[in-house]
Formats: sequence, structure tokens, C-alpha cells
Amino acid sequence: MTLLELLDYASVIVFALTGALVASRAQLDIVGFAFVAALTATGGGTVRDVILDRNPVFWVAEPGFILAAVAAAALVFFTAHLFESRLKLLTWLDALALAVAVPAGTGVAMALGHGAAVVLLMGVATGCLGGLMRDVVCNEVPLVLKQGELYVTAALAGAAAAILASQVAPESVALPACAAVTFTLRAGSLLFGWRLPVYRSRPPRR
Amino acid sequence: MTLLELLDYASVIVFALTGALVASRAQLDIVGFAFVAALTATGGGTVRDVILDRNPVFWVAEPGFILAAVAAAALVFFTAHLFESRLKLLTWLDALALAVAVPAGTGVAMALGHGAAVVLLMGVATGCLGGLMRDVVCNEVPLVLKQGELYVTAALAGAAAAILASQVAPESVALPACAAVTFTLRAGSLLFGWRLPVYRSRPPRR
Amino acid sequence: MTLLELLDYASVIVFALTGALVASRAQLDIVGFAFVAALTATGGGTVRDVILDRNPVFWVAEPGFILAAVAAAALVFFTAHLFESRLKLLTWLDALALAVAVPAGTGVAMALGHGAAVVLLMGVATGCLGGLMRDVVCNEVPLVLKQGELYVTAALAGAAAAILASQVAPESVALPACAAVTFTLRAGSLLFGWRLPVYRSRPPRR
Repeated sequence: MTLLELLDYASVIVFALTGALVASRAQLDIVGFAFVAALTATGGGTVRDVILDRNPVFWVAEPGFILAAVAAAALVFFTAHLFESRLKLLTWLDALALAVAVPAGTGVAMALGHGAAVVLLMGVATGCLGGLMRDVVCNEVPLVLKQGELYVTAALAGAAAAILASQVAPESVALPACAAVTFTLRAGSLLFGWRLPVYRSRPPRR
Repeated sequence: MTLLELLDYASVIVFALTGALVASRAQLDIVGFAFVAALTATGGGTVRDVILDRNPVFWVAEPGFILAAVAAAALVFFTAHLFESRLKLLTWLDALALAVAVPAGTGVAMALGHGAAVVLLMGVATGCLGGLMRDVVCNEVPLVLKQGELYVTAALAGAAAAILASQVAPESVALPACAAVTFTLRAGSLLFGWRLPVYRSRPPRR
Repeated sequence: MTLLELLDYASVIVFALTGALVASRAQLDIVGFAFVAALTATGGGTVRDVILDRNPVFWVAEPGFILAAVAAAALVFFTAHLFESRLKLLTWLDALALAVAVPAGTGVAMALGHGAAVVLLMGVATGCLGGLMRDVVCNEVPLVLKQGELYVTAALAGAAAAILASQVAPESVALPACAAVTFTLRAGSLLFGWRLPVYRSRPPRR
């Protein structure tokens, strides 16, 4: 298994766990868990593959991804009640999923020889869109747009780190560096309140 | 016209009727009816064709699909007031649309030679995503995720029935069997409350 | 730069401004502004290119589009407070974006030799879907489905005007005519309340 496949698997499994946790908040049945989990797990990578015209889409080529997502959904269905705070678990698993999905998107775009702007966008899209679909479909406030937290910023910084690192190091260093930067920024935002200034409207000039 | 084209037409027309009914609940004008109807009618099949890299997408190849969706929207615009309960009509038309869209997705994926996991997912996606787009865009609670009803389960069981039946019978038997299983489960859920157990959080273990 | 590229650039920049304005209403940080702006700016054209199988997608081929969207987002981040009514500014910029995106979609579909139904739908989809994604993701009531305003109708009429004009005039006339018709109808609806009759349920016949 290549590093990129490994990242895709990790991203699918951890995003599927988050999808199933959101399904538990909506009190769906086990097939509903699997549906939301599969949508969350494959959403970002599917958009990446369709936009970059990779054929076949990663989970069509290797249906093991679907089985992994369904297994993750079943695991959550039977164990989620063991956790005290499902929202906290969800937030941290989502941070972990972001940190593996961003290098998965970045790595594919770099391997196809795209320039920096496309690589950055594919990192952000692969990292953010699966969770965004999950939250829109389940009518949750999207984590990706939660005010006063680093999320897209963490993805963008991770993708930028991958581009910089790939100038001087092989993929096996650049993609883990991307994951580390993404997770550090997202975790720092959750734990210590790291943030960028948000827009605040001021009174118009006189 | 092949059986697959027939299923695509039936799916487009019946989903268009549901889209127009949702538009009537939002009190849109006739062009708004046509817009929501066309989105609902083509959404699932478009995702199917893009993911499976079928070119051209079914309604680009045969614009009659669009005309059929627009005609269905106009029909609803002028007649919806004749029905006592538009919500009930919507729910049952949606069940019918699901029952023709699942075999339409399943049949295309089987005809392209995909394995069971991809066939199942394409059946579910083609059946569920058009209605999901309709409900997200019009800010309705998605029927597909309504708690305590069989919906994705009906689609999944129908797609599984198609796979099993296709081992021993031709497509002309397998796809109608898929439609019958899907509709029976969905209708049984609506009429008799058939359901799977839903997730309920329990207190954490001590 | 061809006329179609020019329309794509104008559409990206003006839709990015609207995305950033919606981000300002959600009080996001500057990276959130860029994310919503890029999604809004590229959403409609990406769907167009994926459905019509244009490879590569327009902004993958020319990453200048992304830079333009990000620059527009930054501009709004630092200047939006200068405007008295951001909602009014948003509505009018959105009308302008619609009026350049519809000919951008229409022109591409006509250049690929598609028939009238596909050209109309691509005009509407390219014009409407970016803003629809923006509003769904940011949990705003979609402008495109706002009751009692011409929006999809303006897009549809513009696309129809392009088809008619292209029978007797070159693209350099047909596409500006499309933009003029779209903007006139949308602006007339905003300024003078032009509208089509909306659906109103009546009591069922006895």
C-alpha cells in the first residue's frame, strides 16, 4: 500500500467515525449511520477525483474503502454510548480526519504535477468538503465555518507546508509534515483558542 | 427504448413531481417549480454518471429528460391544489421515485461491470441524492434521514435484491425485482411503521 | 483573452465578492472569507465543466481564477464596513454576478455544440449554483429561491436570448445580449417588483 492509499484509508475511516457520531446525534438507525458515514468519508476525496479527472474515483477502484466506512459506522452504533461527551469526541476525531485528509488531497494533486494554487485548493477541498456535506445534510452548524476557530486555516497551512517541504524532501516527509502542521493548528485552536481576527463590522465613516 | 432508459425516464418524471410539490410548499413561481423539479429529477443520476465517468451525462445525451421534468413541474403548478394533502402525495410519489431510481442506478453500475460494493452504493446514491438535494436546497427536513423510517434501508435492500437476482435471472427480471423490494420496504415503513432500531444514547458505564 | 475567459473572470470576481459579503455576515476570519468566496466563485462553473466533461476544469487550467477570488475576498474583509447596507450591496453584486455567469455557461455549452435544452440548463446552472452553494453552506435563505423575485427566470430568459441572438449574430453580440437580458430582468424585479405569479394553494374542489 502506498502512502497516498494509506492516507486515503485513514481519512475514510476517521471521517466515517465522525459521520456516524453525527448520525447518533440525529438518532438514525444503523443504515442511516452507514449512509452518513459513507457520505462524509468519501465526499472530499470524490470531489477531488472528479475535479482532477482521476478515473476511476478512489473508492470505485478499491471498494475496500466502502467496507471500512461501514465498519466504522457499525462500531460507533454499538459503542457511542460509552463516551461521556460525543460532541467532544466528534470534534477531536474531525480534527484527526482533517489532518489526514489534507495530505491525501495535497499528495494526489502534487503527484499529478499541478501548481501551487491547485495543490492548496485540493488540500483544502479534500479536507473540508466531506465534513461540510455531513453537517449540511444533517443540519448541524458546519464545523468548518465555526466562528473563531482555525479550520480552513489549518488545512491551508498544512497544504502550504507540504508544498514547501516537497522542495527539499521526499513525499514520505512532506505529507507527514502536512499532517502535523494541520493537526497542530487545529488542536491549538481547540485547546488554547488560537485564532485569526474575525470580521467585525464597524460603523460606517462619517 | 431500453429498460435502463425507461427507468431513467420514470425516475426523472416522478422525482420532478416531488420537486414541484416541494416548490409548491415554498410558494415559488412556475420557473422556480421547474428549477427544483429539474434539480431533483437529475441530481441522483448526474452524480452516478459523473462518478462512474459515463459520458455524456444521461440528460446531456438525451434532452428529452429535461422536457419531461419541466412538463411534470407545470402539471403540478396547475393541479396541486386539487389534492387534499400535498405532504402525503409528496411522500408517496417520493417512495415511487425511489423505487424506480434505485434500479436505474443499480442497472447502470452492473452494466458497467462493477462489483457488489459499487453497485450497492450507486443504487443508494442514485435513489437518494436527488431527493436529498431537493430537501437541502428548499430547507426541508430530508426525507432520506427522517428518523424511524426505512429509506436508505429500502434502497440498499433493493440494490442487494438486484445483485442476487442477476445471478440467476436476466436484467429484465432483476431490475423489476429491485424496484419491488425497494417500494415494498418503503411503503411498509410508511403504512405499518416497519423500522430498524434507532440509536439511543444510554448512560455511560460506571 | 477570449470573451468566454473574460466572462469567467468577471463571474469569479463578482461572485467572490458576494461570497465574502456572506462570510462577513457570519463574522468569519479572512481565511473563511477566502473559502466561501472561492466556493461561490467556482461552484457554478465547476459543475458546468464536470457535467460537460471539459478537462481540465477552468480554474485548474488557469489558477489565476483562484488568485482573483482570494483578492476579492481580502478586499471585502478590509472594506465591507464602509458600506451602509451590506445586504443591499450583496443583492446587487449577486445580480451582476448572475448576469455574467449566465453568458459564461451559455457560451461554453454553445461552443461545444450542444442543443437548446442543454444550453439553457447550463446557463441556469452556471449562474445559479455558485450562489446556491454559498447560501446553503452559510445557512442563508437562498437568494435563488426567494419567493416573489425573478432569479432563475432572469437566467433562463438570458440564456434563451443568447440562443436566439446566436442565430443571427456572432458570439460577441449574443453573449452581451444574454448578460443584458439577465441583468435587466433581475434588476427590474429588485427595483420595480417584476414577478411571475407564485403558486398559492386553493381549497380543493368539492
